[in-house]
Amino acid sequence: MSRGRRRGSPDTRAVVLAAARELFAGQGFAGTTIRAIAARAEVDPALVHHYFGSKDDLFLAALALPVDPRQVLAPALAGGSDGAGERLLRTFVSVWDDPDHQAALIAVARLALDPQAGDRLLRDGFLPVVLQPVGAALGLDRPELRMPLVMSQLVGLIVTRYLLRVEPVASMSPEELVAAYAPVLQRFLTGDVDPPPVPA
Amino acid sequence: MSRGRRRGSPDTRAVVLAAARELFAGQGFAGTTIRAIAARAEVDPALVHHYFGSKDDLFLAALALPVDPRQVLAPALAGGSDGAGERLLRTFVSVWDDPDHQAALIAVARLALDPQAGDRLLRDGFLPVVLQPVGAALGLDRPELRMPLVMSQLVGLIVTRYLLRVEPVASMSPEELVAAYAPVLQRFLTGDVDPPPVPA
Repeated sequence: MSRGRRRGSPDTRAVVLAAARELFAGQGFAGTTIRAIAARAEVDPALVHHYFGSKDDLFLAALALPVDPRQVLAPALAGGSDGAGERLLRTFVSVWDDPDHQAALIAVARLALDPQAGDRLLRDGFLPVVLQPVGAALGLDRPELRMPLVMSQLVGLIVTRYLLRVEPVASMSPEELVAAYAPVLQRFLTGDVDPPPVPA
Repeated sequence: MSRGRRRGSPDTRAVVLAAARELFAGQGFAGTTIRAIAARAEVDPALVHHYFGSKDDLFLAALALPVDPRQVLAPALAGGSDGAGERLLRTFVSVWDDPDHQAALIAVARLALDPQAGDRLLRDGFLPVVLQPVGAALGLDRPELRMPLVMSQLVGLIVTRYLLRVEPVASMSPEELVAAYAPVLQRFLTGDVDPPPVPA
């Protein structure tokens, strides 16, 4: 380990996380390297890998999410694209409705909609790290088109139900949310979302 | 006019608008009266009506929208609920894509998503003043359920396309947006959005 760099210590994790948050928010996921985070935290890059694993893992840890969305989503992906809209929505709602998680998720959502950090965190972070792998796992055609469409409806649902608490959406039961939104998500995942061909 | 209150003057409009913005943001649309705005601005309530018309009109003026959404939406409402999803979406996109309007609209959207003001402006203001009358004009059954669903998708589209500029949504043509989103809006306006009945 280089001279002048911190060795592993009780506060090393916190220092690395703080450095990661600053760089991900300021430069985006793609523009941030483990090496740059290690330099900012004054630790060896190997130590960052040792504590946090991959850059994806570190990104999710830096967001301070109460759950790892990749683990939570895994069961919903197991059944393939048929019915995936409903399974994804049920998973999404069960996590967001959980009183143990909601305050932390709202804090992340507020941060993601902050003009100073938001475009980077969602567009350059959450989309490639969490949502695009969902599209790949479901075997979608053109996940690079379909997952941003899914994101647009889920972001709208987060804002409407959890941030602004617009009724009746804020009080709808999971079954009511599934009836309203699962067909929308399923259409974005597997339906026809292309304009008709222009006549020659 | 009462003593100590401002008479109509070149800056009266600006003073009234500033007072309206403060009160709408702090207390919401429903919780704000013309009388309270007049008191804050130190003018006669009749002068506020004279300059700005109804409370709805004053609310929209206070938002500093580059267009009056009620006027812009009127042609889209003329044809009734058939095809209204596509007409509303085309109107929405044409206004938001207009380079003369976009910066001002983004500023309003940022304000509406601000935790200090946002729930009031959208939920207690824009929804009853603009969106619920759309539902009534289209003759929807249960507009109080359907228009918040429409709002949830439009808010998600605003965040994804205009605030975060997530590709490919940010660069999609109006025809591509119509193909992706008009069926969603139409379903929220007139489709089946109810859960199946629970067996007795």
